[in-house]
Formats: sequence, C-alpha cells, structure tokens
Amino acid sequence: MFAERRERLRARCSGAGVDAALVSAPANVRWLTGVPGAAALLLERDRAVLAVAHPSRDRERDDALEELVVPVGQDPAVAIAAAAPAEALLGVEEHDLTVARHRAVAEAAGGRLRDLHHSVEQLRVVKDEQELASLRIAAEIADQALGELLESILVGRSERHLAMELERRMVDHGADGPAFPVRVGAGDHSGRARHLPGDRRVEEGDFLTVSLGACYRGYRASATRTFVVGLAPAEWQVDLHAVVFAAQRAAREALAVGSSLDDCARAARRVLEARGYPPELDEGVGHGVGLDVEEEPRPGALEPWPGEFGKLENRVPVTVGLGVALPGRGGVRIEDTLVVRPSEDGGPELLTITTKELLAL
Amino acid sequence: MFAERRERLRARCSGAGVDAALVSAPANVRWLTGVPGAAALLLERDRAVLAVAHPSRDRERDDALEELVVPVGQDPAVAIAAAAPAEALLGVEEHDLTVARHRAVAEAAGGRLRDLHHSVEQLRVVKDEQELASLRIAAEIADQALGELLESILVGRSERHLAMELERRMVDHGADGPAFPVRVGAGDHSGRARHLPGDRRVEEGDFLTVSLGACYRGYRASATRTFVVGLAPAEWQVDLHAVVFAAQRAAREALAVGSSLDDCARAARRVLEARGYPPELDEGVGHGVGLDVEEEPRPGALEPWPGEFGKLENRVPVTVGLGVALPGRGGVRIEDTLVVRPSEDGGPELLTITTKELLAL
Repeated sequence: MFAERRERLRARCSGAGVDAALVSAPANVRWLTGVPGAAALLLERDRAVLAVAHPSRDRERDDALEELVVPVGQDPAVAIAAAAPAEALLGVEEHDLTVARHRAVAEAAGGRLRDLHHSVEQLRVVKDEQELASLRIAAEIADQALGELLESILVGRSERHLAMELERRMVDHGADGPAFPVRVGAGDHSGRARHLPGDRRVEEGDFLTVSLGACYRGYRASATRTFVVGLAPAEWQVDLHAVVFAAQRAAREALAVGSSLDDCARAARRVLEARGYPPELDEGVGHGVGLDVEEEPRPGALEPWPGEFGKLENRVPVTVGLGVALPGRGGVRIEDTLVVRPSEDGGPELLTITTKELLAL
Repeated sequence: MFAERRERLRARCSGAGVDAALVSAPANVRWLTGVPGAAALLLERDRAVLAVAHPSRDRERDDALEELVVPVGQDPAVAIAAAAPAEALLGVEEHDLTVARHRAVAEAAGGRLRDLHHSVEQLRVVKDEQELASLRIAAEIADQALGELLESILVGRSERHLAMELERRMVDHGADGPAFPVRVGAGDHSGRARHLPGDRRVEEGDFLTVSLGACYRGYRASATRTFVVGLAPAEWQVDLHAVVFAAQRAAREALAVGSSLDDCARAARRVLEARGYPPELDEGVGHGVGLDVEEEPRPGALEPWPGEFGKLENRVPVTVGLGVALPGRGGVRIEDTLVVRPSEDGGPELLTITTKELLAL
C-alpha cells in the first residue's frame, strides 16, 4: 500500500521533471511509509530511503524501504539529503522546511532544489477504504467518550477538567490520543470556535459546547456538540439551538461530489440570514481531515486548492460545523465529520453519530 | 516587563544593524508580549505591533503594544510584514519561518530580510525570578500528580491510561496542560528516554518509568522517575536503580555557574563506566527549560550555543536526567529540573521534589 502511494508520488515527480523527492512533512512521511514521528523520506526513481531519528523497535518491516538511523541531534532531512544522487534535481517541501533547514538540506544535497509544493497533500485528499475505516473508528471513539461524560455530573467542574477527562476517556477507548486539544466552553464561553478551556466552572442553565476528536492509527476526526446544563433549556437557548441545527443541516445537505465547502457555507449562511442571525462563517464551515486534523480541502489555505478549486470528490472526509455565539450569553456550535459519497451510494456518510438534539443534562 | 524585554531585543537589533525585527516563533512572541498562540511581533525602534489571528477577549492591555487582528486564513507574520517601514532591513527568524512563509514575508515587506538567528532564544536563557516562580509551580504540580498516582492501583492499567491520568491530574492541580505528552513505560519499556505509552499493561514486578511535566503560565518543567511494581524489587532492579541514581546525582553535582551540561554528562559517564554499564548518554543529560520544554542550552542543537559554548549561568533552569535500559528487561530513568545557582547561594536549586529512592508500589 505504501509502495503504491510512493509510486503515485514518483509519477508526479517525473511529470514535474524532478529526479528525487525529499519529503519532510511528518504526515506526508507517515502516509508514504507508515512511520510516524521525526523522519524524512528520500524517494528516488529506483529506491526509497527513510531517515529516522529514533528507530522504532516494534515497526513492521517494509522491504521496499531502506532505513537510515541518523545520529542524535542531526536533522533527518539533512542526513537523507546527503544520500541524494549528485547533480539530481531534488524536490523539497518548502511549506514544511524552515529557511535554516532548507539551507542545510541544500548544502548536504549539493544539487539543485525545487519546490514540491503540496504534491503529497494533494495525493492524500481522497482516502482509501482503509483510511476511512480508521477515521470511522476515530469518530466512534469520540462519540463513546462524549456519551460517557454526559452521564456524569457536570455542574461545578471546570472547562479544563472536562477537557482532560474527555481526552483520557478517548484513550481508554483505544485512541492513540486526542486529535487536537479538546475544547470545552461553558456559559458565555459556549458556541465559540476556538475557545481554550479555562477555570470557568459549569453552572446550572449554562450552554456547554464541547469540541473533541480522537486520533486512531494517526487519523483524526472532529466533532462539536452543545448541550444545556440543567433540567430544561431557556426559550432563547431552544431557539438559538434550532437555528444553528438547521444551518448546519443545510450545510451537510449541500455536501456532494462536485460541490465545494463554499457551497456548504452558502447554504448555511442563507439559513442564518433568513432567521436574522449574523452568519459568523468567515472561516467557512469545515475542512478536510485525515492524518492532519486540518488538511485540504480547506478555506483560506495558504496555498489555494489547485485544479478544480476545492470541488469535492468521492471518499473525501471533511468536517461540517458552525456556531453562533451571543456576546455575554454564549451560544451553540455543532460540527460533524462526514465522508463525501456520490448520491447513488446514498450521499454523504455521517461519521459522527452522537445526537445533535438539544439535550438538557 | 515585556517592554523591558523588547528593549533588550531592540539593543541587539541595532547592534546587528537591523532596523526592525519580525518575531514569529510562538515562544519568542509570548516572551516579548505575554501573548500565546498564533501571533507575530513587529518590533521597530519606536513602536511594537502584534499581529494576532484571534483576538483574545480576556487579555491584559499592554499600552506599549499596538494590536493588528489579521483576516481569517492570513498568516500573522505576513500581515505584520506589510506594516514594516519601506526600505527597512527586517530581521526574521529563519529557524522558524518556512521557505514558503519567508517568501511571502519578503514580498509583503518589500524591503530586505536578514536572519535574526536565535537572538530571542538567547535572551530567554537566563530567567527572571517571576519566570522561575512559574517553573517552580510547574514542577510542584507534576510532583503532586505523580504522588497521587502512586497511591492508586497500578497493576492492570495500560501505559496510555496512566499517561492520560497524569495529564488530567496536572490540570486538576492548576496546570495549563501537560508540558509534553506524558511518557509511561512498563516492564521492558521502562528506562527508555522516548518510549511512547502504548497498550502494555502494568504487571507485578515491572519497572515503571514515568516522564511528566506541567505547563504553568506557559513555563514547562520535566521530571522522570522509575518505580518497581509489587511488594519488593528484585536484586537486579535494586542494583540498576542504585547505579542510575548515583550517575544522575553525579551529573546534578557537576551543575554549577561556569560549568556546562557536557561536564554533567562526563560526570555521569564516569559513574556508569566505573560500574560497568554502557553510558547511553549520546543525547547528553539534559537541556534548558522555559517557555519551550526543550530550549537553550542543549546538546546537538541545530545552531550551536554561541559565545561561551553552553557555559551555565545563574538562573538558568535545566533538566538533568539519564537512564539505563537492559534489552528485554527494561531499566531505570531518573530526571530532575533544577535551576543553576552560584555556590554562595547554596548551589543548584532542585525544583523536582519527588523522592528518587526506589519505591515498591
């Protein structure tokens, strides 16, 4: 499988007139070799050499892959560059290498360097069924952890405490770890996209927004839910939740082969505006997920999505989420991870199963 | 305080003939402004402008600091570069900026760029008492979390579970979060420097090695301890622990103003060799800690420590740790965080209080 992926990159390289590729972005190296952590891959037409800082003692053997263990303190990318064929035109990832590392790589390689751009990231966008299976499990794990938390007492516990509790539960359910630091926002912190959990303690009547995701075999999903703490939600809470729920559903329903995440954002914006809410969708409604928790396709990416400008394809997993937060009162945020599927296969596959109804806890 | 730090950087810049500095390394930006997260600082002779991706709603006001909130998807470093004075010679951190970002910064700035090297990291090496107070609390928190874990049942729990438990407990004791992912190694995984916690469950008679650190107000300490699980350690476990204990103590005792971490490594190596153990000290015995969990001074740093080549000074916090692991059996690793102090002040200040005796749990 990894060998087949490396073949696809080789094809790209020879198409671009590059003799060899030096891959340094960790997720790209992992996707091409299965090896996580500090490593760099030198891919030539007829061989592949992986430079690792620390030899993993329990790694599956990949006979198509030579291994070079680099001395302590040495940069694997620089070490492997020295192994590149002289006079070769070497493709490197300028969006990953710092200027200082790039300089060291150039010196070590001796030959000329050329930017590979996001070639590997682009190959990674459409997932194979094995990758989707890992994402499915990652989403399941988050559902389980969240379900357990909702059965426990929440009032009086801090955002930070709840976030760590969720991370531990995901690991207990088999996650490698959290896909990203779990975010919990209570009361006036609820509904925000990027609130960092703090000392705020959960109180009766609070909105409680939880964003979490598990990392399983390196694959990262993401989900967000908002609940009401207490016996019954207030009327404004019911109304706000209904609006966000409807807007997020509209975004999900706009998800199709050939559509784009911008189409989803437009669908959501229409709903929010119709209900008189300011559409806080500057960041769009989602992004791709995989070995990185935020990958192509995505809005505002530093390097714009090439070719079809973000047109979604079959087997592309993405997040679809949005929120509305009222200053001083908090708000609602709902996010799912889905896989784009053609309509003849029943349309988008929802990986996040946890209910999106407004639960009062 | 932040203004005073910025003055020191200004002095360095004018010394280097640089008109303005664009600081992008997160820990450097935080040290100069107090602002964590995605941000970039433009420091000119007569003004300082901070570009932030997300305005923190609850941030202390710093009147000497202008704030620029950048549009979604835009790179704060690129946005702030556009605000640099035309024709200015702009200092940038080539060890932090990727080639792609450096290119975008150069285009935005219009002027010429020059490498700031590790100027800010070097200013950060000697800590003020407020920074040391945060490190002291960070070390305390780790001690507390570890102490609590040792009172609980360990047999049957997985390395991963114990690691997450420790992270949650540190947060409960007031940590921002873990300083780094907690590492737990049981049985044949014990004693290793970089073992990632896995599904291995703790068994009677195991060595159990735990490496943990808390992050408090951004400051990160690190500690490692090894225990025996069961009523009484085996003889080989007692012997191995005694050797590592003696070697780590020798390294700590070599810590002094004017000495270096290499001196500490040599002292430890002498002990290990005298007892007939292979000194596994290629990585040295420690490194500086602060806003980064691994900072100057350190062995094998990509950019060698300037001037006095790693001579330690008063108020430099470092880790001192080492281990011996026997293939198939596991081993012992012991690490403390200490602050270098002159002998007239009583010598190194030990921040990690937890006992280094071999406890049987």
